[in-house]
Amino acid sequence: MEKQNALNRRNFLKATAAAAGSLAGLVMLPQCGTAGDTGRPESIHIIGPREGYSPQVGTLVSMLDWMRMVVVNTVQGLGPKELDYLHDSKANTIGAMLLHLAALEAFYQVTTFTNRKELNAAGKKKWQTALDLGDAGRKKIKGHNLNYYLDILQRGREYTLAEFRKRDDQWLMLVDPAFFGGQPTNNYCKWFHVCEHESNHNGQIKWLKSRLPGTRAGND
Amino acid sequence: MEKQNALNRRNFLKATAAAAGSLAGLVMLPQCGTAGDTGRPESIHIIGPREGYSPQVGTLVSMLDWMRMVVVNTVQGLGPKELDYLHDSKANTIGAMLLHLAALEAFYQVTTFTNRKELNAAGKKKWQTALDLGDAGRKKIKGHNLNYYLDILQRGREYTLAEFRKRDDQWLMLVDPAFFGGQPTNNYCKWFHVCEHESNHNGQIKWLKSRLPGTRAGND
Repeated sequence: MEKQNALNRRNFLKATAAAAGSLAGLVMLPQCGTAGDTGRPESIHIIGPREGYSPQVGTLVSMLDWMRMVVVNTVQGLGPKELDYLHDSKANTIGAMLLHLAALEAFYQVTTFTNRKELNAAGKKKWQTALDLGDAGRKKIKGHNLNYYLDILQRGREYTLAEFRKRDDQWLMLVDPAFFGGQPTNNYCKWFHVCEHESNHNGQIKWLKSRLPGTRAGND
Repeated sequence: MEKQNALNRRNFLKATAAAAGSLAGLVMLPQCGTAGDTGRPESIHIIGPREGYSPQVGTLVSMLDWMRMVVVNTVQGLGPKELDYLHDSKANTIGAMLLHLAALEAFYQVTTFTNRKELNAAGKKKWQTALDLGDAGRKKIKGHNLNYYLDILQRGREYTLAEFRKRDDQWLMLVDPAFFGGQPTNNYCKWFHVCEHESNHNGQIKWLKSRLPGTRAGND
């Protein structure tokens, strides 16, 4: 196993070194994948390190960016009526799900950036309804336009990224001894969940979007 | 920027080195996160390197494993009737979506493990209906039990993992000059998409599951 570990380290270094240059016949990622002074790669479809973040944290950021782009593309152009559309008595509206994404991110900020395990009183007041969804969500989350939701999501994300910039890959691998299912869970897993959870709801949002009154059939 | 790159490299090395030992007061991921000779970490909720894979490829594998576990948990216990349940005339069944996940993985195997850009004739015959879903999917994909779908998913994943073991982090960062939206897209992004796409459909599967005839109200 030690041999394998050494090999793994060598491979990573080799990949990092090669990424700085180029390899005949292959299109390689420029190191840090940046274009000009934007700190972003030439394409959002490059998963990998980002300038301003440690390599693994930056890779996570590239996933979060990619996923958020997908969600924003899905909801682009929806008005308050569509955001409040309730498909059946058990459903959540698209608007409520967008706020739910922001609420979940707020919860994971607490559980990974602080020593607390849950939202404090102010946090609960702000986020609990959107975290829980259900009847209270159906009653309380409505009447907003798209920018209302996108602004909240964006502000939450800016805070996440600012905290990520202060941390390193060692922090990302830190293990909470009992989290998902009471089992050891590292910060990377918690934030990977924040990311894939956006896709989970994106699937539901697309499903609802193709069934908005007056919408032609979709296949979601 | 060069200074930043050097810093990124140092941080990664530091994290890798620290992961091999332990830090007072912190629970750290053991190097490669393995337990005994299983080649797996003590908890599936550890995102990070996996034995037998280069570090970044192994990290991707840990995400794919985690996501697949979530999907399998969602469908556990469903019978053929539930897998064939059609919610409305535009919907896909849960069974069809499971086959769709296997079909998408087969497509990305082709586009990242071979020089081809699409499935060959045999591949299309096998996967096209599940890739497209829609009317043909509603007509053709039915009458199977859960193991039928899980076995196909598992066999596809085993092939993916076998190919991953032959490749390294440099391969993962290779850029296809025109893929998503005709833009540069690396292999990591393609496989991240395979992963988050499972979550997208998991969201829809949960939505349908909570509406199966005779099921109590859910909130998805």
